[in-house]
Amino acid sequence: MTSVFELPTPALLIDEAVLDRNIAEMAAALPGARLRPHVKAHKCTSLARRQAAAGHLGFTCATIRECEGMAAAGLGSDLLLANEVLDARRIGALIDSGSRVTVAVDSPRTVLAAADGGVREVVVDVNVGLPRCGCAVADAGPLADLARSSGLEVRGVMGYEGHVVGLASAEERTAKCRASMELLLAAHASVGGALVSGGGTGTYAINTWANEIQAGSYALMDTAYAKLGLPFWQALFVLATLISGTGEWSVANAGLKAFGMDHGNPSLDGADIWYCSDEHTVFSPPRRVGDLVRFAPAHIDPTMAYHERAYLCRDDEVIDEWPIDLRGW
Amino acid sequence: MTSVFELPTPALLIDEAVLDRNIAEMAAALPGARLRPHVKAHKCTSLARRQAAAGHLGFTCATIRECEGMAAAGLGSDLLLANEVLDARRIGALIDSGSRVTVAVDSPRTVLAAADGGVREVVVDVNVGLPRCGCAVADAGPLADLARSSGLEVRGVMGYEGHVVGLASAEERTAKCRASMELLLAAHASVGGALVSGGGTGTYAINTWANEIQAGSYALMDTAYAKLGLPFWQALFVLATLISGTGEWSVANAGLKAFGMDHGNPSLDGADIWYCSDEHTVFSPPRRVGDLVRFAPAHIDPTMAYHERAYLCRDDEVIDEWPIDLRGW
Repeated sequence: MTSVFELPTPALLIDEAVLDRNIAEMAAALPGARLRPHVKAHKCTSLARRQAAAGHLGFTCATIRECEGMAAAGLGSDLLLANEVLDARRIGALIDSGSRVTVAVDSPRTVLAAADGGVREVVVDVNVGLPRCGCAVADAGPLADLARSSGLEVRGVMGYEGHVVGLASAEERTAKCRASMELLLAAHASVGGALVSGGGTGTYAINTWANEIQAGSYALMDTAYAKLGLPFWQALFVLATLISGTGEWSVANAGLKAFGMDHGNPSLDGADIWYCSDEHTVFSPPRRVGDLVRFAPAHIDPTMAYHERAYLCRDDEVIDEWPIDLRGW
Repeated sequence: MTSVFELPTPALLIDEAVLDRNIAEMAAALPGARLRPHVKAHKCTSLARRQAAAGHLGFTCATIRECEGMAAAGLGSDLLLANEVLDARRIGALIDSGSRVTVAVDSPRTVLAAADGGVREVVVDVNVGLPRCGCAVADAGPLADLARSSGLEVRGVMGYEGHVVGLASAEERTAKCRASMELLLAAHASVGGALVSGGGTGTYAINTWANEIQAGSYALMDTAYAKLGLPFWQALFVLATLISGTGEWSVANAGLKAFGMDHGNPSLDGADIWYCSDEHTVFSPPRRVGDLVRFAPAHIDPTMAYHERAYLCRDDEVIDEWPIDLRGW
């Protein structure tokens, strides 16, 4: 067995015990089809397979490549591309090959693109307060009509309360989640279909209005979500080597190319992070050159996407190497 | 020929005319060995080959993988790994295979690691003001002695004035560059060797003390460096499709996984960028769903590292597809 101390650094480490505990916790709260895990958070079919083993057979994807990779891994029995596309031909090809892929639509253009590309099933994506994708509630019914008249089956609605999932106050999260989902249910009343899909890790326990939750971050977690007091724990770390230092600071060999930076710097127990550059993170107080450290990334989604592989670890043993095989487009 | 309008998005586009002009401008200012282009900025051997064609046969690398990829591409005749490593065995293997790789050292540990790994040539990395790697000036001579007594050839010194390259005021950049390079020259006096290596795109024209400049960003540029008024122009863009929108905003299908975010949001002519999420950028005023847009990334180094390939373009024609083959570690 390889020890983590023998890995080339920087290396992405997944703590298997924590990962499995997070997956089990979520599967207990939202069993089976109540959860549609979002693969954008990890972009890793090996990890998705553990989510499937916990009972979740439908998955959420953000990109066509994620759908293709999930299908290639044998996990394409019910994929929801929770994003709009204007060229759906690659999705049509996946469906022709036997996968089930449902695509989000929010405009006449995206309905026509789905039909033209060979898509058979769609959900109407509804804006529930986040200024991003999704149609207005009043447009949802007409869009469903257009989809049906274009030969598409409309499976229901989705709406992502992305402006709510990260709110620090649980009370505010609950109130705003309710307001968002009331919009989604109003749209659903005019759209029909079985699916009312929404939510994320920050609202998984609050959002009782959606009948499936698109959470992704819960499996690996990050320092941003950790502030919300959820029953999930950080399972993802970046192992780095201290390659330089002085009496004032240490320099680790992992930087901007190893960490998603949009939520800020990574964290290291007991350390004050000074800054990250391309291949370095500088922090104090200093430790010994040659020591290994484990950084906790601030945002796991881009962090996973920046690495080729992650090492699955049981304590300090590397027990598997998982390709991050859903990255790219 | 493929048109850019047929590419799957998001797609990384390199404007060939601008790239070639940037490379020619730099080669005129710093011909041949006066420039040691830094490949960390682009991580692309196809692009490095154009820099070699312009007369620069020595290259700077930040990671062992970059050295390996450059060697595999036949560009390993004089590589400087301008970074410390504590396990140099992969470098030793490259040298055994016929490449020339010189490694930066800044501590007894890194000297011993170089010797143990089969490295033959080093430079002493000197701290010239940036709190990161590099030894104190007073330690440079003793470190060179240790290296020589360990059987290593010491080719000279390097020092990166990273705290200077981005300063907005040209006067301040010049004054602080001089102060940094006086430290480097003081170290060089006690170290010896032919190389005095330093600099970057922001100081390429100022730093007359170093005898080779490690600039990388000049070839593709980014919005951060563009503020300095240098004679280099942005050659790198991310092509995205507008997949959704309202009367208030548009949503493009490129986000945190397509842009290096540490220098801030990407730019789009005439647009106010609201925010980026994993696979989206939201901006106003809105444009039509289905339109293509070209974002200028704020920081090219991580942007290149997040993509598998870049498309080389002549106006709107795609004339080549370049793998970003030096990413990872």
